[in-house]
Amino acid sequence: MTTPETADLFGKNKSVLITNVIHGDGPVDIFIDASETITDIGHDIRKRHRGEAEFIIDGDGALALPGLSNTHTHAAMSLLRGYADDMILQDWLNQKIWPLEAHLTGEDVYWGTKLACTEMIRTGTTAFNDMYFFMEDAARAVNEAGIRALLCYGFIDLGDAEKRERECKATEALVAHIRKKNNSRIRAAAGPHAPYTVSPEGLKWCAEFAHEQDIPLHIHLSETEKEVTDCVAQHGKRPAALLDECGVLTPKTIAAHGCWLDDAECALLGKRGVHVAHNPASNMKLATHRAMPYRELARAGANVCIGTDGCASNNNLDLFEEVKMAALLQKFFWNDPTILPAPAALAMATTNGAKALGFGTGTLDGGAPADLILVSTHLPCTTPLHNAASNLVYACSGAAVETTICNGRVLMLEREIPGEQEILTHAAHAAADLIRRAQTPA
Amino acid sequence: MTTPETADLFGKNKSVLITNVIHGDGPVDIFIDASETITDIGHDIRKRHRGEAEFIIDGDGALALPGLSNTHTHAAMSLLRGYADDMILQDWLNQKIWPLEAHLTGEDVYWGTKLACTEMIRTGTTAFNDMYFFMEDAARAVNEAGIRALLCYGFIDLGDAEKRERECKATEALVAHIRKKNNSRIRAAAGPHAPYTVSPEGLKWCAEFAHEQDIPLHIHLSETEKEVTDCVAQHGKRPAALLDECGVLTPKTIAAHGCWLDDAECALLGKRGVHVAHNPASNMKLATHRAMPYRELARAGANVCIGTDGCASNNNLDLFEEVKMAALLQKFFWNDPTILPAPAALAMATTNGAKALGFGTGTLDGGAPADLILVSTHLPCTTPLHNAASNLVYACSGAAVETTICNGRVLMLEREIPGEQEILTHAAHAAADLIRRAQTPA
Repeated sequence: MTTPETADLFGKNKSVLITNVIHGDGPVDIFIDASETITDIGHDIRKRHRGEAEFIIDGDGALALPGLSNTHTHAAMSLLRGYADDMILQDWLNQKIWPLEAHLTGEDVYWGTKLACTEMIRTGTTAFNDMYFFMEDAARAVNEAGIRALLCYGFIDLGDAEKRERECKATEALVAHIRKKNNSRIRAAAGPHAPYTVSPEGLKWCAEFAHEQDIPLHIHLSETEKEVTDCVAQHGKRPAALLDECGVLTPKTIAAHGCWLDDAECALLGKRGVHVAHNPASNMKLATHRAMPYRELARAGANVCIGTDGCASNNNLDLFEEVKMAALLQKFFWNDPTILPAPAALAMATTNGAKALGFGTGTLDGGAPADLILVSTHLPCTTPLHNAASNLVYACSGAAVETTICNGRVLMLEREIPGEQEILTHAAHAAADLIRRAQTPA
Repeated sequence: MTTPETADLFGKNKSVLITNVIHGDGPVDIFIDASETITDIGHDIRKRHRGEAEFIIDGDGALALPGLSNTHTHAAMSLLRGYADDMILQDWLNQKIWPLEAHLTGEDVYWGTKLACTEMIRTGTTAFNDMYFFMEDAARAVNEAGIRALLCYGFIDLGDAEKRERECKATEALVAHIRKKNNSRIRAAAGPHAPYTVSPEGLKWCAEFAHEQDIPLHIHLSETEKEVTDCVAQHGKRPAALLDECGVLTPKTIAAHGCWLDDAECALLGKRGVHVAHNPASNMKLATHRAMPYRELARAGANVCIGTDGCASNNNLDLFEEVKMAALLQKFFWNDPTILPAPAALAMATTNGAKALGFGTGTLDGGAPADLILVSTHLPCTTPLHNAASNLVYACSGAAVETTICNGRVLMLEREIPGEQEILTHAAHAAADLIRRAQTPA
């Protein structure tokens, strides 16, 4: 399928000609020069670029798509994949997740993020929106993996002024750290965890800081019904109104979940140009009992995109599976099989997700960043191929992805990711060691 | 991973030693002799079988599971994968599915079933329960593919006595045909389509015929709310009561869907020992708006298993994806994250499904039929591996399966299925030609 010297290709900026892939209405070739962008795309353009290309990838009829964007996750929680499931939310957090997280180190987050990036590359995701701790270590992992990320420190003050002070400092430190790295693939966001874990003062500080730094803001919003009723009891208003009062709702805000938004809140999020990340698998697994009101949000003009949430509550990072879940859950819950048809579901992971993350990806137009994936058409899930969007959303999993390119660099080719087994081994050891530490009496 | 002469291994009954796989509490080896059964399984038994084995498969730490059982599908509808989605059920049937099915030939069903079997082998399913037309051609495809199937002709009389006569004959002919083939992997069932498409006379005939022939019976039951209200209006009773009156509910009956069963119906199905096939992806996609009452059915003693439904309404045959959907949908709809935990969800596809189909599979005990699959542990979805059932249900798709063995024959090894590309090409042509015929004015 390729020229033989692939060892020289992985992770480097070489000029690559991809021939014979399907995009839009028919077959195209794609030429990526060493400048990290798609130089040229079109029917049968191979002739004019063959001489320049250092590598040629024979696409063999694959579907070419922009690299996918995962707009809400906690990447390093991949270490907790399968550690605790099938529990009541509060027991799950109190007895399992939080005691483990109390023992997390920067090294754990590094290996967890490495594992997560490997899984994302394997399943076609080239950019993600992450909220967690030890984010300098996450940045190190993302840098090595070669994909893009918007990283934030999960700011939680629980109404405590001293704690707030520390969270502000941690947020400032992360933003300064990432800015200093000057890596176009890695950007920082403000990350107030949620209206129920951050005081109005903390929310306001995050909003102002994000504005002042001109960076995005990433927050959880109305995942469970209890959050909403508690918010109304405590603040006399629903969560979206509270956030708006604190200046949190802007066109640079990504709000995750939104299961319990009412019509007025959908209208408000639309009016403010907020990006809303739907997380259907996590919402189903943790029994939120209401699906994000996709139709109302989309009608109101909010940018609805998709996220996997962390691996402790999903338990994978496969956006192909996630868009299928989204399309199915919307139909089932809102009792209408026409809601969120395949092209719209796919757009949540491509165009819409890219718009939320702001790296300029999400299209295969000439001049766009060279972030693209190839999906094999030589599989049962792409046979027959009456309608590619339907095959991609309803039939394929991320395992149908055979090649992943980010920022002009080939990260996976014919399902091979260099160094993958070493990463899996290290991550498995880190996970086992974390559990051992958490279970050892102090 | 294997001895080199794999060309001699595929599809033949050779004695095979599988070393170093994980099953139950730890590592085991598995020895399959040429008699189609698991001869021996246990820790480090390789020494006593190495001399006898014609082939050795190095399991490399893979998880060994029984081959999965898909207890409700319409295999040949794989040709319609992606042909029509995101539509109201009645428009979808009237405008898209039925006009196409009117042009179906035996050859189409043959290629559609070949495609479906290939997809099932690839995703770890070794036995399925099928209802469709031209089932002699389906049997031919299943025989060649090497997996197991329970096949029935979809009996639909719509209350018309003449049509009923023809459907009885078609049912008798299929059962006689399959009996004559004398293939232990392929068995026949009676297939009254549903209480709303088959008259009470037709239902009674099917029940009596199944009893007389000592064969299973496969039927759709309470997929949509409308079926239930129509049944009550027409017959003065709910569908399960109607079926019971017609003698349809027995321990050899597999009822698909069951979304709208009430508590009394669950109790009745449990009392009669019926197998109920949950089809969560199809139910969500077609917006049935209620999830099968798993907990009530299981409590009542019904054997709850899993099905994918056909590829026109799912759109794949991946049981790993389906058990995840089941576990998630049950939690979400019934508002309890503890319903259908991972081990119980997995059992729907292994033990329970095997019990429904009656081939004696579903276990890796010595003496059991050699139907087994190996799931790679060298993937992100199986890293870390805190709890194998959780990884299998919540993190893996069927693409994690690397080896599939049915009836002692290796059908897929290291993800290679001999002849796969030819089958995909033929099936794609058959699908395109079917649509061309359906769209050509008579």
